[in-house]
Amino acid sequence: MLDQRRLPGEVIYHTYTNYRDVAAAIKDMVIRGAPAIGVAAAMGVALGVQHSRAESLDDLRPEFAVICDTLAKTRPTAVDLFWAIGRFKSRFEELARQSSADGSAASLHSIRAGLIAEAQKVHQERREADERIGRFGAALLPKDARVMTQCNAGALATAGIGTALGVIRVAFESGSRIEVFVPETRPYLQGSRLTAWELHQDGIPLTLITDNMVGHVLKTAGVGAVVVGADRIARNGDTANKIGTYGIAVLAREHNIPFYVAAPVSTLDLSIPSGEHIPIEERSPAEVTHLAGTRIAPDVRAAHPAFDVTPARFIAAIITERGVARPPFEAALLAITVGTSGEQRTSSEEEDQAVKREKRG
Amino acid sequence: MLDQRRLPGEVIYHTYTNYRDVAAAIKDMVIRGAPAIGVAAAMGVALGVQHSRAESLDDLRPEFAVICDTLAKTRPTAVDLFWAIGRFKSRFEELARQSSADGSAASLHSIRAGLIAEAQKVHQERREADERIGRFGAALLPKDARVMTQCNAGALATAGIGTALGVIRVAFESGSRIEVFVPETRPYLQGSRLTAWELHQDGIPLTLITDNMVGHVLKTAGVGAVVVGADRIARNGDTANKIGTYGIAVLAREHNIPFYVAAPVSTLDLSIPSGEHIPIEERSPAEVTHLAGTRIAPDVRAAHPAFDVTPARFIAAIITERGVARPPFEAALLAITVGTSGEQRTSSEEEDQAVKREKRG
Repeated sequence: MLDQRRLPGEVIYHTYTNYRDVAAAIKDMVIRGAPAIGVAAAMGVALGVQHSRAESLDDLRPEFAVICDTLAKTRPTAVDLFWAIGRFKSRFEELARQSSADGSAASLHSIRAGLIAEAQKVHQERREADERIGRFGAALLPKDARVMTQCNAGALATAGIGTALGVIRVAFESGSRIEVFVPETRPYLQGSRLTAWELHQDGIPLTLITDNMVGHVLKTAGVGAVVVGADRIARNGDTANKIGTYGIAVLAREHNIPFYVAAPVSTLDLSIPSGEHIPIEERSPAEVTHLAGTRIAPDVRAAHPAFDVTPARFIAAIITERGVARPPFEAALLAITVGTSGEQRTSSEEEDQAVKREKRG
Repeated sequence: MLDQRRLPGEVIYHTYTNYRDVAAAIKDMVIRGAPAIGVAAAMGVALGVQHSRAESLDDLRPEFAVICDTLAKTRPTAVDLFWAIGRFKSRFEELARQSSADGSAASLHSIRAGLIAEAQKVHQERREADERIGRFGAALLPKDARVMTQCNAGALATAGIGTALGVIRVAFESGSRIEVFVPETRPYLQGSRLTAWELHQDGIPLTLITDNMVGHVLKTAGVGAVVVGADRIARNGDTANKIGTYGIAVLAREHNIPFYVAAPVSTLDLSIPSGEHIPIEERSPAEVTHLAGTRIAPDVRAAHPAFDVTPARFIAAIITERGVARPPFEAALLAITVGTSGEQRTSSEEEDQAVKREKRG
């Protein structure tokens, strides 16, 4: 796992052999970004089961529950985490039913192998989803657009080409002379440390700004679109994303700039009606008062909500790997989640599909 | 001069004996905040004239012009700087006329003494203005209000009790259980380093936030008013202030929270019709990519507009030492600038006053 806390100064990879270490890595933000957290959780579950010493299904089942629970308790907002764990719970039961009921070593082996294969499948699906989100989203951008993003919804956040940055990458690769405004995204500086780094590596022109320059830039710099990722999208389209996203959305509307959310369907949480039901993670105030271990503020009270919720009315479209949802989002998102994952179609084309994808375990 | 770049970690005072060093201190932000820059420029001019070796008025006059010019070229946005220099140019000519025309040592002495007295007067007027701004503004705040400010419009910015923080201080001292949300104000962190420090020293409850938390806090934390300072206010009420102010104003309106500007009349620039005519200082991108000498971003392009302009339509009132101006601002600000400075009255009461205060030299 590439340690995102150390970028761009140092490129350090960690190898984990224990699901508890994977959970700690998610909690401590070695890895972050909702889709990447989903992939990491999938890998973590597979790792936990692989290293389990259980010799029977009856022994493995409670251990599997502990593994899932440990990974689920790392971060509360990104729904991809719970989506991945739910998927593995279903898959576990499926594999358990398929294997012989005696709990033999052979049947446990097939469960282990099945879960490892499932984790690899999650990773592969994620890559494919990013490519499709990129294509759908790039088609929405004006030619040679100036675009603003927020935080990092890039390769580092998804294990693919990225969601918001996937859109930007596809546009750039197709010849658009795109330029990106990158808010630094305090307190963790995912914008400057990760997004600016990713774009710079790819040779995509960018301008780094502090978070409080967003209003001035949207007013004066000819930005044609804002595209951000998401940590959880409620049924009505309300979207939780990195703190600051809501402010950008309000400012984008003030300047009639379309505001797009790019996210895989695993980020949809149709079980909740609106953003009010999304838990907002409060992280340590020390992350605000200190930077890279150095105190940058006096010893005062500080708040650190890690996410905010952008109401659906500020969002022009939600770009998923299954198509682009437009307001009203409830019908569009429901349509998006219906159908097999192997096909590209728009939300309206999906409305006649009967199979609804199960969202959470 | 208290070195504001080192706060709150270190409390270091510099003593300047040369106007060029005062100019450098303004440029390098040893001192900042529009009203404080005005006081510093006044002191700088007095210092320059005091140390001049000119022995005749004919020798002193071009030297005085160079002193004024050097101080004027430090920072472009804060109009108090030009106001102070304009005031000294007028005062210089006044003193020159009053002294004997022969350019004798005695007459030069009286010019020098007169300019020193003028600088002390500017400082004293500033203190009194802050007190009155504080009283006018505190009357506008809801009881026990939660208030947001931006940057530092405090004692450090004015040489008095502050403008925006003056309002907060007067409210607090009059028994209001006020609470202040303080955005850290990147890249210079005037919010965390200076405003949080000032409030903490006075025992005024505060919560430090990063700049991108503004939207979330205004949406969820029950903030009753925003009060900020200003670097220049155009005739129509458009207000230049520290970068980020515009975004806060748009978000405040989105949540029906009144947005107040607190500034002395020396910050009014009635010579320009609107904010489009306010020059916005572009500072070094290194101030964005580095923090306290440490690189915090990859080697990419960065922008650093130091100010933004908040259109008048987002401003509920402009609080000056001569009263509170309400929209439409052009008539109200014109009325504010009319009359003698020794009286407190509201803008409507000032409309019958005939003497218009000269703004720029």
